[in-house]
Amino acid sequence: MNPKTEKPVILITNDDGITAPGLQNLVEAVSDLGEVVVVAPDKPQSGMGHAITIGVPLRLTKLNHFPNVQEAYQTNGTPVDCVKLAVDKVLHRKPDICLSGINHGANHSINVIYSGTISAAMEASIESIPSIGFSLLDYRMEADFSASKVIAHRIVESVLKKGNDYKHFLLNVNIPAVPYELINGIKLCRQAYAKYDEDFDERLDPNGRKYYWLTGQFKNFDEGDDTDVWALEHNYVSVVPVQFDLTDYKLKRELENNWDVL
Amino acid sequence: MNPKTEKPVILITNDDGITAPGLQNLVEAVSDLGEVVVVAPDKPQSGMGHAITIGVPLRLTKLNHFPNVQEAYQTNGTPVDCVKLAVDKVLHRKPDICLSGINHGANHSINVIYSGTISAAMEASIESIPSIGFSLLDYRMEADFSASKVIAHRIVESVLKKGNDYKHFLLNVNIPAVPYELINGIKLCRQAYAKYDEDFDERLDPNGRKYYWLTGQFKNFDEGDDTDVWALEHNYVSVVPVQFDLTDYKLKRELENNWDVL
Repeated sequence: MNPKTEKPVILITNDDGITAPGLQNLVEAVSDLGEVVVVAPDKPQSGMGHAITIGVPLRLTKLNHFPNVQEAYQTNGTPVDCVKLAVDKVLHRKPDICLSGINHGANHSINVIYSGTISAAMEASIESIPSIGFSLLDYRMEADFSASKVIAHRIVESVLKKGNDYKHFLLNVNIPAVPYELINGIKLCRQAYAKYDEDFDERLDPNGRKYYWLTGQFKNFDEGDDTDVWALEHNYVSVVPVQFDLTDYKLKRELENNWDVL
Repeated sequence: MNPKTEKPVILITNDDGITAPGLQNLVEAVSDLGEVVVVAPDKPQSGMGHAITIGVPLRLTKLNHFPNVQEAYQTNGTPVDCVKLAVDKVLHRKPDICLSGINHGANHSINVIYSGTISAAMEASIESIPSIGFSLLDYRMEADFSASKVIAHRIVESVLKKGNDYKHFLLNVNIPAVPYELINGIKLCRQAYAKYDEDFDERLDPNGRKYYWLTGQFKNFDEGDDTDVWALEHNYVSVVPVQFDLTDYKLKRELENNWDVL
């Protein structure tokens, strides 16, 4: 909360970069709910996962012409760096909520692990800032964000009311790429075991040397009807609450009883 | 298993790069246990998290002078790319085990999320390849890996026997930086809630423009004696079984009962 205006402070970042339409649409969607501060990468950072910048110095540049915000900055860092810089060097305190996105493309199932969008939100949640990552299932720059804006407004308004009831509150929201009238509702889900079956497109450069592009087919190996992939296939908005304790407690218990190196 | 030699195939990668002493020490530690194939980044990739390369083409270069291995390659990709390339373009099938490290520096507690070392191992585990990330609590290039080699040999030998009993088997192993005689044992742990309290070192470049280095103090907020941080502080090797389902089931259940946007 900004003590002067009594409005919540909303930090927004993304991984598609400061000029991505998804970021501008997220700002427009929530600007009536508080004071928006944007700190975003100066270039696309998709697939950066939870990367941080430790080998090169970070730059932070104020932007004077970014509509609907209190302040906006771009950095040469990753999405995670953006959150760290925002708290320490822009706001000088924690925002009331951190939003990341709206990503151009899905971040459901296993993609959550590779996602710069979710990593930025997770960084905030580690710092006990309620946070939400938003993704639209349309990779194109000209994607239609009109339904996403309505959904984002509803979810953010609600989380601003209740997010602080939890120590670490993080939601991964994916939105199907259909008009608003065709969305069947908002569904709480678990992360599906669905992933890309990877392949590499092998080519020769003009000097005759091989190079590779990562490619592949998306496959769902999870038959549950409680997953994010199931929800999205049935035109629901999927909401997966996300944690950062990666301990596999089941495997831990099993090894405790029968592992000879302990 | 290599059907010709009947030896297990051991894939080794890391995030400190192909020339890091930790990688060479890991190769030496396990070369008697199978056929070792190395695919590692051509430069340091620390802090890369689960990043993948999608914006630039990948290169894969065979190295002819890498001791104690069947084959060795370097790539311009991330640790996760190394595992994908190894399976699809070098081995043309899954190895029996994937090892990542030995990292120069800790990957306990929350660091697991930022760690290229663990992300490479996680990539393997997603593909149902048993995998282990090793890290020594000494950042220096001249770190002493002699105790780590003994520990790694013991753990890898044991996991080669039993890793395939599980669909997704991933261990995060951290080794205290003390001589072997001072290590109190190997301990199964959970991931501590301990993290860096970040700060940015603000400087001026020769042109008078600000830049920042990420820095900070490590703080343990977790009082449990079952955590990796506790184990390492007491000179145990910490072993945390790691999963990639990030769903926060507790928060999911709570929201199911009392969230107004559903």
